[in-house]
Amino acid sequence: MSKAIYPGTFDPFTLGHLNILEKACHIFDEVILAVAEYSGKENLFNLQERYELCKKATEHIPNLVVSTFQGLFVDYAKSQNCKIMIRGMRAVSDFEYELSLAITNKKLNPEIETIFLVPSLKYMYLSSSMVRQLADLNGPLEDYVPACVAEAMRKKYVS
Amino acid sequence: MSKAIYPGTFDPFTLGHLNILEKACHIFDEVILAVAEYSGKENLFNLQERYELCKKATEHIPNLVVSTFQGLFVDYAKSQNCKIMIRGMRAVSDFEYELSLAITNKKLNPEIETIFLVPSLKYMYLSSSMVRQLADLNGPLEDYVPACVAEAMRKKYVS
Amino acid sequence: MSKAIYPGTFDPFTLGHLNILEKACHIFDEVILAVAEYSGKENLFNLQERYELCKKATEHIPNLVVSTFQGLFVDYAKSQNCKIMIRGMRAVSDFEYELSLAITNKKLNPEIETIFLVPSLKYMYLSSSMVRQLADLNGPLEDYVPACVAEAMRKKYVS
Amino acid sequence: MSKAIYPGTFDPFTLGHLNILEKACHIFDEVILAVAEYSGKENLFNLQERYELCKKATEHIPNLVVSTFQGLFVDYAKSQNCKIMIRGMRAVSDFEYELSLAITNKKLNPEIETIFLVPSLKYMYLSSSMVRQLADLNGPLEDYVPACVAEAMRKKYVS
Amino acid sequence: MSKAIYPGTFDPFTLGHLNILEKACHIFDEVILAVAEYSGKENLFNLQERYELCKKATEHIPNLVVSTFQGLFVDYAKSQNCKIMIRGMRAVSDFEYELSLAITNKKLNPEIETIFLVPSLKYMYLSSSMVRQLADLNGPLEDYVPACVAEAMRKKYVS
Amino acid sequence: MSKAIYPGTFDPFTLGHLNILEKACHIFDEVILAVAEYSGKENLFNLQERYELCKKATEHIPNLVVSTFQGLFVDYAKSQNCKIMIRGMRAVSDFEYELSLAITNKKLNPEIETIFLVPSLKYMYLSSSMVRQLADLNGPLEDYVPACVAEAMRKKYVS
Repeated sequence: MSKAIYPGTFDPFTLGHLNILEKACHIFDEVILAVAEYSGKENLFNLQERYELCKKATEHIPNLVVSTFQGLFVDYAKSQNCKIMIRGMRAVSDFEYELSLAITNKKLNPEIETIFLVPSLKYMYLSSSMVRQLADLNGPLEDYVPACVAEAMRKKYVS
Repeated sequence: MSKAIYPGTFDPFTLGHLNILEKACHIFDEVILAVAEYSGKENLFNLQERYELCKKATEHIPNLVVSTFQGLFVDYAKSQNCKIMIRGMRAVSDFEYELSLAITNKKLNPEIETIFLVPSLKYMYLSSSMVRQLADLNGPLEDYVPACVAEAMRKKYVS
Repeated sequence: MSKAIYPGTFDPFTLGHLNILEKACHIFDEVILAVAEYSGKENLFNLQERYELCKKATEHIPNLVVSTFQGLFVDYAKSQNCKIMIRGMRAVSDFEYELSLAITNKKLNPEIETIFLVPSLKYMYLSSSMVRQLADLNGPLEDYVPACVAEAMRKKYVS
Repeated sequence: MSKAIYPGTFDPFTLGHLNILEKACHIFDEVILAVAEYSGKENLFNLQERYELCKKATEHIPNLVVSTFQGLFVDYAKSQNCKIMIRGMRAVSDFEYELSLAITNKKLNPEIETIFLVPSLKYMYLSSSMVRQLADLNGPLEDYVPACVAEAMRKKYVS
Repeated sequence: MSKAIYPGTFDPFTLGHLNILEKACHIFDEVILAVAEYSGKENLFNLQERYELCKKATEHIPNLVVSTFQGLFVDYAKSQNCKIMIRGMRAVSDFEYELSLAITNKKLNPEIETIFLVPSLKYMYLSSSMVRQLADLNGPLEDYVPACVAEAMRKKYVS
Repeated sequence: MSKAIYPGTFDPFTLGHLNILEKACHIFDEVILAVAEYSGKENLFNLQERYELCKKATEHIPNLVVSTFQGLFVDYAKSQNCKIMIRGMRAVSDFEYELSLAITNKKLNPEIETIFLVPSLKYMYLSSSMVRQLADLNGPLEDYVPACVAEAMRKKYVS
């Protein structure tokens, strides 16, 4: 049975992430959406919130497990007995960071393969940071994130 | 059973292609290496030669079928009942062409997904055109292409 | 009255070009679509054919003049008493060539300004060369070029 | 009468911004230089200071209005009855962010068009962040920003 | 006698920096490794710590002097009577920043030339920020930084 | 005594090449301008013509030798007992090709180091292909190539 992990901080989880995830769930028998505790920057949502929003936004997908992890991705992948990492790739500016990440993970564990999927055209220029900026400016969020995420962001920005 | 196609002109088939192919054969149950007749430019090897070199260079891989195709990739994929296309991605300069190709194929057949794999670091800067240029200058080919390809290229350039 | 020129080889004229042109015609009072004789490579259609296809494909736009020119763009612009050049910009790979062109034209005639427009998302990855490749492979052209261009390409490839 | 808005944080306003602005003022009958309150990061100058420096640095340009705005650019543009947004584009690294911004604004209001202008060669590698870094290191600022901005920066860094 | 300066924040000094430095020391008679006080961001190690780690990690190189500097690089270079600046270049994303830096330094002092060296392939995707991230996640550091730096980082992250 | 080789096809030799060369001649005691016979494409000038134009355009530089070579650069460098290769780097689009070349040469001869120099800003967007295109269109060449090259190009395009 083929299994793959789609890791990320998902802060917030966008319709672009959902798009990549749905593609992955068509290709592999089982997919784990793994929310990383570590993001290297200040978060909008904490780990528990991000986990719950991902879970809610993906409850229609049968062969998906939502999970969280701490520390290195390669250690988590090993604990799950999984060797395939999924990443979305949208833009040239993503490219070199992703390559560097793929090479680092390969060095940390030579059995890990990274697979890149391209989102549908309409999500090509959508990023979590653009969504956070829109929310900062009180703009509409519905075209960019699942409804549950839009609602949670609006509460966050009001409070 | 999971199945994927790795299409290309393979003119010539390099150790970088072999590297991508071996990764693909670990991920999927069956992989088709599909040599495209059309290349849009003058070829070094004709379709039959490219097919035979690919076959020889990959005979150690059990779950691999080498094949040729004419016309649109999406039509060929449909005839093989396969929805996954594999492409290697090495450099920023590949990126936009590959994206454009993935989007065009998706439009021609919405069921096709393109998966990108990254070669091992030592093949990151290896391309068929660099190999052809090396052969033009009578340079060593063994570090860049399988032995059978090196031999065929040397005969081609002498004759 | 504001006036701008949109030059190119338009070999062939695509729906992406049309998209840029329609934006330009909303911004400026008058736009000249200027088909360049020189393309620096072998053409699919000759100058007269390209002129006629551009004319047919744009006959619904009132404030547009279709024209042809030889030699340097800056000389043609001067002859038309026009100082604004319009170019579409789709991808990072366009960017440096376009910058270099804008700077060269500025040097040849300091009064010329180049304005870049971005096509709608669905035309972002559409190029004349991708369309020619599709036609080579006998693929569908209707989503990429105006109907009159698709018809002309099909005749060209049959003959 | 043609009208366009050139929005930005202008923190600080540089000779590169001035160069883009002067080009825009030659192309359009009226240009609004719109200083955005929101910058998404800690500012060097506050909104009022940035407004005043922009005003002082551009007082020689007749068909220009300096203004400030809060919230989404598309809402501000609508309130000004203006459909054209001007942006400078200098480098590949600007390109994808700008594209993403143009597409987001187009989605928020389909009537908005973004026009990109390229600065003169000598301002091609000049950015507000490079200028802030120079000021941090007590370097000369006169070749990079208008005199009034250089003076204000020097006061800021002393205090 | 040829002399060159390799400036940077070296926060931390990596095996990639060491690789560039060793190349530089083969090309020039004398090289100064110049640790910049200013980094424009919060540091992991302070100037004194960075200086000492660089000194320890490079003590096997005879024609090298380790030093620190404050303020503009061009002023420091002048004080050392040196006109050649060495920079490593690894990735497209480095490229435009480095170009902008080279041009700014050239303008501040027309006698300064910047020379770019490319690291060996295995250090091509190694950066100080990737190393800091690995340390944050308690990952292995030995393949990326000299032993003395790995030890110092581990102490830093425990405390 | 430090020695470096600046290889290229120089078809034609531009003021940008001259600019890089003059920088190299300030850094190294001796520089060899090595005109490559092989260019991988149809030439404007043949090897002898390119050699003579380079010689004429650089006769004011004392520590320079103009030369030609066939075959691999690394073999030529060895025959000249020289380990340093100089290349100009102008644009992101040069970057990956140059990196790939540097890595290939390093593999063919591990003793070869490639050094990249950046041209002065005004030559940043100047390339041989842009100059050939200008000549095709009968445009002015004096700002882009040495006088002797402009004259030779004009004769070539008339005949």
